[in-house]
Amino acid sequence: MTRTSLKDWNCSLARSLDIIGDKWAMLIVRNAFFGTTTFSGFQAELGIAKNILTNRLKHLTENGILRRLEKDGCYPRYKLTPAGWELSTVFIALLQWGDKHVPPPGGPPLQIVDRETLQPIRALALQSGDGKPLSTKEVRFAKTPADFEKR
Amino acid sequence: MTRTSLKDWNCSLARSLDIIGDKWAMLIVRNAFFGTTTFSGFQAELGIAKNILTNRLKHLTENGILRRLEKDGCYPRYKLTPAGWELSTVFIALLQWGDKHVPPPGGPPLQIVDRETLQPIRALALQSGDGKPLSTKEVRFAKTPADFEKR
Repeated sequence: MTRTSLKDWNCSLARSLDIIGDKWAMLIVRNAFFGTTTFSGFQAELGIAKNILTNRLKHLTENGILRRLEKDGCYPRYKLTPAGWELSTVFIALLQWGDKHVPPPGGPPLQIVDRETLQPIRALALQSGDGKPLSTKEVRFAKTPADFEKR
Repeated sequence: MTRTSLKDWNCSLARSLDIIGDKWAMLIVRNAFFGTTTFSGFQAELGIAKNILTNRLKHLTENGILRRLEKDGCYPRYKLTPAGWELSTVFIALLQWGDKHVPPPGGPPLQIVDRETLQPIRALALQSGDGKPLSTKEVRFAKTPADFEKR
């Protein structure tokens, strides 16, 4: 999809970004969460150019985020795979960050709710191994255990 | 940064993506988490073209993710703002997804640890308002409360 592939980088984050680190790919997955399944549905909702949409649907299907379902006489439908569904933590983290730092004028327009009770879910939060809440400054990324000592 | 701005969309997710929904922007923020602060540092670590790096650093600074610090006789340094630090939940969600679904050949190469104990943190997980663990299929995104009834 992009000229510089990150697929071979030794980093799961870069490898994830190689699949969904693109605004249109993310918005397609977002709308798949909302229940959109067809080319024309994604096109109408996102106002995305057809060639870009074709390219991104192919990319997301090849990378196991969407499944393409074909039935005689029908247009194909695109549904999230289990791996696609598991991107929800990424989306919820992005949504919660946006609600806080770049809220739209009318306030947060999307809610994430428990499907059963329709009540809002908790904000995603960092926790230590034994369940203690951690602020962002209380965690660190480390490449290897040996890397801890260097900083 | 992109031709189609999502800034005016009435969705915090789209608004977040307008700021960091770009592979290079995300990788720059990732390396800022690791402690990189200089143009030449980002350039060497990411192998990114200088014009793209200049563009992305400007974009991230203008959008309040990085602060540009200048000191007489020194090259400028770029540091994460508090809002930039709070992107850590997004990164951790992407990293955990990648570790599970697209792990590098040698296994997960990055660890996220509690800065104090150096022990790995818990995986981010969805929880209901009263703390019950929820699977991805047990939550839903809803545009408005009225939207609940339609699906």
